[in-house]
Amino acid sequence: MRLLPFILKPLVLSGAILIVAQPATAQPRARDLGIPFEGISGKLNAITDVADVEVGYSSIVKGEGKLLVGEGPARTGVTAIFPRGKTSSDAVFAGSFILNGNGEMTGLAWVNESGYLEGPIMITNTHSVGSVHEAVIKWQVKQGTYESEWSLPVVGETWDGYLNDISGFHVEYDHVAEALNSAASGPIKEGNVGGGTGMVCYEFKGGTGTSSRIMKTKAGTFTVGVLVQANFGRRHQLVIAGIPIGKTLTDNAPYTDGRDLYQETGSLIAVVATDAPLLPVQLKRMATRVSLGMARTGATSGNGSGDIFIAFSTANSRSKKADAGLADITALSNDHISGLFSAVALATEEAIVNALVAAETMTGRDDHTVIAMPQDQVRVLLRQHKRLSD
Amino acid sequence: MRLLPFILKPLVLSGAILIVAQPATAQPRARDLGIPFEGISGKLNAITDVADVEVGYSSIVKGEGKLLVGEGPARTGVTAIFPRGKTSSDAVFAGSFILNGNGEMTGLAWVNESGYLEGPIMITNTHSVGSVHEAVIKWQVKQGTYESEWSLPVVGETWDGYLNDISGFHVEYDHVAEALNSAASGPIKEGNVGGGTGMVCYEFKGGTGTSSRIMKTKAGTFTVGVLVQANFGRRHQLVIAGIPIGKTLTDNAPYTDGRDLYQETGSLIAVVATDAPLLPVQLKRMATRVSLGMARTGATSGNGSGDIFIAFSTANSRSKKADAGLADITALSNDHISGLFSAVALATEEAIVNALVAAETMTGRDDHTVIAMPQDQVRVLLRQHKRLSD
Amino acid sequence: MRLLPFILKPLVLSGAILIVAQPATAQPRARDLGIPFEGISGKLNAITDVADVEVGYSSIVKGEGKLLVGEGPARTGVTAIFPRGKTSSDAVFAGSFILNGNGEMTGLAWVNESGYLEGPIMITNTHSVGSVHEAVIKWQVKQGTYESEWSLPVVGETWDGYLNDISGFHVEYDHVAEALNSAASGPIKEGNVGGGTGMVCYEFKGGTGTSSRIMKTKAGTFTVGVLVQANFGRRHQLVIAGIPIGKTLTDNAPYTDGRDLYQETGSLIAVVATDAPLLPVQLKRMATRVSLGMARTGATSGNGSGDIFIAFSTANSRSKKADAGLADITALSNDHISGLFSAVALATEEAIVNALVAAETMTGRDDHTVIAMPQDQVRVLLRQHKRLSD
Amino acid sequence: MRLLPFILKPLVLSGAILIVAQPATAQPRARDLGIPFEGISGKLNAITDVADVEVGYSSIVKGEGKLLVGEGPARTGVTAIFPRGKTSSDAVFAGSFILNGNGEMTGLAWVNESGYLEGPIMITNTHSVGSVHEAVIKWQVKQGTYESEWSLPVVGETWDGYLNDISGFHVEYDHVAEALNSAASGPIKEGNVGGGTGMVCYEFKGGTGTSSRIMKTKAGTFTVGVLVQANFGRRHQLVIAGIPIGKTLTDNAPYTDGRDLYQETGSLIAVVATDAPLLPVQLKRMATRVSLGMARTGATSGNGSGDIFIAFSTANSRSKKADAGLADITALSNDHISGLFSAVALATEEAIVNALVAAETMTGRDDHTVIAMPQDQVRVLLRQHKRLSD
Repeated sequence: MRLLPFILKPLVLSGAILIVAQPATAQPRARDLGIPFEGISGKLNAITDVADVEVGYSSIVKGEGKLLVGEGPARTGVTAIFPRGKTSSDAVFAGSFILNGNGEMTGLAWVNESGYLEGPIMITNTHSVGSVHEAVIKWQVKQGTYESEWSLPVVGETWDGYLNDISGFHVEYDHVAEALNSAASGPIKEGNVGGGTGMVCYEFKGGTGTSSRIMKTKAGTFTVGVLVQANFGRRHQLVIAGIPIGKTLTDNAPYTDGRDLYQETGSLIAVVATDAPLLPVQLKRMATRVSLGMARTGATSGNGSGDIFIAFSTANSRSKKADAGLADITALSNDHISGLFSAVALATEEAIVNALVAAETMTGRDDHTVIAMPQDQVRVLLRQHKRLSD
Repeated sequence: MRLLPFILKPLVLSGAILIVAQPATAQPRARDLGIPFEGISGKLNAITDVADVEVGYSSIVKGEGKLLVGEGPARTGVTAIFPRGKTSSDAVFAGSFILNGNGEMTGLAWVNESGYLEGPIMITNTHSVGSVHEAVIKWQVKQGTYESEWSLPVVGETWDGYLNDISGFHVEYDHVAEALNSAASGPIKEGNVGGGTGMVCYEFKGGTGTSSRIMKTKAGTFTVGVLVQANFGRRHQLVIAGIPIGKTLTDNAPYTDGRDLYQETGSLIAVVATDAPLLPVQLKRMATRVSLGMARTGATSGNGSGDIFIAFSTANSRSKKADAGLADITALSNDHISGLFSAVALATEEAIVNALVAAETMTGRDDHTVIAMPQDQVRVLLRQHKRLSD
Repeated sequence: MRLLPFILKPLVLSGAILIVAQPATAQPRARDLGIPFEGISGKLNAITDVADVEVGYSSIVKGEGKLLVGEGPARTGVTAIFPRGKTSSDAVFAGSFILNGNGEMTGLAWVNESGYLEGPIMITNTHSVGSVHEAVIKWQVKQGTYESEWSLPVVGETWDGYLNDISGFHVEYDHVAEALNSAASGPIKEGNVGGGTGMVCYEFKGGTGTSSRIMKTKAGTFTVGVLVQANFGRRHQLVIAGIPIGKTLTDNAPYTDGRDLYQETGSLIAVVATDAPLLPVQLKRMATRVSLGMARTGATSGNGSGDIFIAFSTANSRSKKADAGLADITALSNDHISGLFSAVALATEEAIVNALVAAETMTGRDDHTVIAMPQDQVRVLLRQHKRLSD
Repeated sequence: MRLLPFILKPLVLSGAILIVAQPATAQPRARDLGIPFEGISGKLNAITDVADVEVGYSSIVKGEGKLLVGEGPARTGVTAIFPRGKTSSDAVFAGSFILNGNGEMTGLAWVNESGYLEGPIMITNTHSVGSVHEAVIKWQVKQGTYESEWSLPVVGETWDGYLNDISGFHVEYDHVAEALNSAASGPIKEGNVGGGTGMVCYEFKGGTGTSSRIMKTKAGTFTVGVLVQANFGRRHQLVIAGIPIGKTLTDNAPYTDGRDLYQETGSLIAVVATDAPLLPVQLKRMATRVSLGMARTGATSGNGSGDIFIAFSTANSRSKKADAGLADITALSNDHISGLFSAVALATEEAIVNALVAAETMTGRDDHTVIAMPQDQVRVLLRQHKRLSD
């Protein structure tokens, strides 16, 4: 493990939060802390380990203090994920699964009907779905990747109203264009970034996280990458590396309003990418396994959670545009798919923990503060339980 | 039957279209033409026969001639349907069905998960889904019917790009507010109105249509109302009262671009309302029967069609807000539901034909013209086949 | 049209039924009667127009008079459909749709999950599902097409308890083996045969029917075949060639027990075969269109109806057994699939009417009699409405 | 904790298995071993903590040595679960979820369509689904709980072909009747019993397990019970109390045939019962949460797994039989359901571990032996990780 990152994180004492600025270059990850995970990750341990996948963000952090709807404070943003890169108009096979539908991902009717995902996947806050939906079409029209036909953008969301002026509609066209235009392969930021900027996960600061797995099967070796916007869970539920640390780290939980113990206000959006040649019916199965990775962190998907997952395969390029109307496709046998299912579950678990590790303490609307997960205390607990990998 | 209305409709000659203005007060309906339908309709023969249901429109018709994206011509609009009237914040039980998902209806994830529809149902054009989505939330915030939590608006769409500058995004907040604020019970307009303004159905001018049925069951007599935004079908498929009139009335079909015979560019959005006390699982079944009514007009739901249906029950008012968290609900036995299923199919068939009958010839972008269904010729054909009810 | 067949059918007078034996060679079909249908059928106008598809039957008709459970009278049977012929163990891509689930088709969980159908499709009566399920596995074990793994047979059913001693469990292993072993390509029987032996449709004698369509698309010309076991509908709902003949031909309807007007006791099982290279996600869409064909005969799918449909493609042979775990597959573009959707709807409509035309009057348990649809009277009505094709 | 049970279990040494008989009265449970679980269980910690639920078994263990299809050895059985007791013909609201459909549960089409479960839930081996299906109808006919209409039995299965002569069809009518007739409330057996007799879980001996949770919500306190037939998972995946014990306890794993690391041959059938007044749409959500409990034991639901879950509510008795066709129903608000979701996940996790704890080493066909999970070693590992509750 790398020793540095976690010492740089904020010192969190019960009732007294000291926020320490942290250079982007040193953004820690769960494995850096010695948290053990099953399986072999790709080089970047990110969704961008799947070739051609590009991710872009626009993060909006402005204003402080009391909420004035329309004025702020704003703690939100938008994330863009292109399966084949932002210059491609080639569709990918895709499938989706909804574990609990207290949320939105537009465009899924057509994904599920056609088996194809035809543009980027966008993730933002709940009330900016409309703005992002329109902006994506505008951007496509400008790019000329769209012409006289229709577009059914895929826009997911999670709720950041605890920190963000969510009814102020702060995500505008330029933010969406920034996320789309800045999309790139390579390492990607995690935590308070893009659509994940103002999110809360297990009552710690949540947000964007990612991970990947390299899975060897008898039919070849494939990469599975997952990106999550993590905004779910009650503190007492949090499990890391099998240890119920949320039962111990009970301080500074924001939702102390007397609600039912398991009542949620959050959601998990997950995007699964793979280079394995999977058919739509198989990608739906991949998306379903996100649930199992989510469960490994302790979640039970409460009524208020919008747990919506989409999976795509970058294989079978140009399959849709076959000149004669007949496409040649390669498909992995179901006999060899089980390892990929596990890869989804394992990478989801790690992506969620990565979001928790990367996210920094944030103060937003009405001075609501959500603390970062205290990494040193997590390490202490895991060490007590002999679950630290270093 | 009333004799007047259909003589007022445009004279349509092959290749020469004469548009005749028609007073709104004389808007004809299918039964006025002597077209026979099965079952007993309500007083208004409209979705508003279901008590408390309110419908509002905003229609946008401006500009002429060549398409200039953002400038026009605009031939579009937005429709709002409130299950319990626009001042109620009481949810209704609801369910949905997607016959072919080349379309969008936002909010369905939560409708299907929770069993509840919590706000109005909006219908607009494909590219204005985002604008309407955001506007509904803004309007809810202004009304104070929304407070510090989240909203997942239900917004459906069909594509009007043949007549409308669809990528010009002409539906703005004020239009949405107009549709919402003007929602009312009583008789409602059909044809080129609201979200249906620029729609095309069986290559005749389509748009908004409605119908209702009064169904007597052993458990009571209930009303079923259907409102459609009809924008689907190829000319040769059109069947009215069982007679394949589309095979005869082949003139002036707009889609003469060499596409496959059954290729569609359209969609059907349908909203089913009932006062029968149905549970969510039963309302999904109701929504499914829209398919069967659609089929009675000849459709086979092509790949390009976004055929998305939602059904709600106005019974069980305030069931959701039960103080103790336990609601008292009344539910109709499945043993007596079959008549309601038929009511959905029959009212859907008539609502579609009503849309065709009410819609008037329209010229839109790039001087594209879509003619109204020639009512006199339809009558001639039905009379030949002894299918005219007068 | 051929003139002979329909004169050979039973003379049915209100209240007095004369049953006339009819040679199998002269079994009439709907087109023979001059009933018009849309689209071009294959050579056999049967599911067996799709190459390799084989159909086999076992029909059980024994005993008369009063019902003695376990003794009879028996009026039932079993139907077997092999996608690639009975000697092949090669799976086919498949998908399914349930319009109304008051019925059973075992095996669909795996069809929908895997995208594959791995054995024959069986259809029988409701209470013989178990017997047929076990018998298929026994037969597979005997054939050696099954070895030390598991089998999840596909067995559908409709209810024949009005004519058959359904709780007498008359379908035994030997009947199932007969249906399986006798499966063949070529012309197939319709009406009172196989699983359809004791069925009732629109309160006329129903049973097995089939039809096919040849559909030309820009990507090639494909065959779609449909086989139905038709056992649904109330008399007043029956529509043939768009004409509501059930409203006129009201005599001798069996269900005169005071039930609700739309209450059903029946079901439609439909099997769709095609040689078009369709993926599982597309085959589910094909299966969905059976609903639209069913609706063209007047049905609205009542609560008591088990309307369950399965579709498969015989293309992509051996895709499942690819040596390296990667299969080369051909897939039709969605852009050219709409014609196939129509083919399903149109062939379903005709298959249902074919079942009604072929089925002969039958007397079963407790002397219950269900009359054949009176073909001459149907012709009279269609001629009145100028809907006879001759 | 009780100290005795786990010392009585077989001593398992690598490569040498000593089977020790264990009195039924001392059947140990996971909590007895000090394995910690979240939440408060009911008095019996069983599905029978939900009032009126009755469970019955028939276990078939006969023959030894080499497999002779039809002769044995037989290691199988059947389980019956009655929601309201075996003498009631009153339906319950129900819903289902399929995590991975490589399996069968007949009757779900009607459960999902109607919202009701109308008879017992049966669980057996994969190839005895047919036999049990027929036997249930026969039994219902004999009981007179069935009369002249139809029955669509619910029969689930998991595969026991590693230990059992599964193609020998050893489950016969008398076994099914025994399970049905012996159904009772009170404490229930776990492990090698009923349908679970020959099952394998995480490559240890698996079978039947159960657990319950008492959940306090603002709308009242409710009981949730889960019964599983556990037959899934690869050894290396097994997690107990968050500790990956399967990575350490690698000895005596039966599936050493070179298959992919995550390839499964198993399944999980789960039955969820509650007295909370939930609607069908809510019970589907309950069933979905079984996935999350399964994941807490390490599973990722491989391609070969038939993970099919059904949930029912014993509230709203006689709701279906309302005289006037209108039933008065009580429904829990979604706002208070999240705790019940957690209860499902937590009780599922414990039920699976209970199955592993109760199941004893078994030798079956071809002398295949599957060892019981070595309880002492599990305790050692949990103690090392400070995860033992004693």
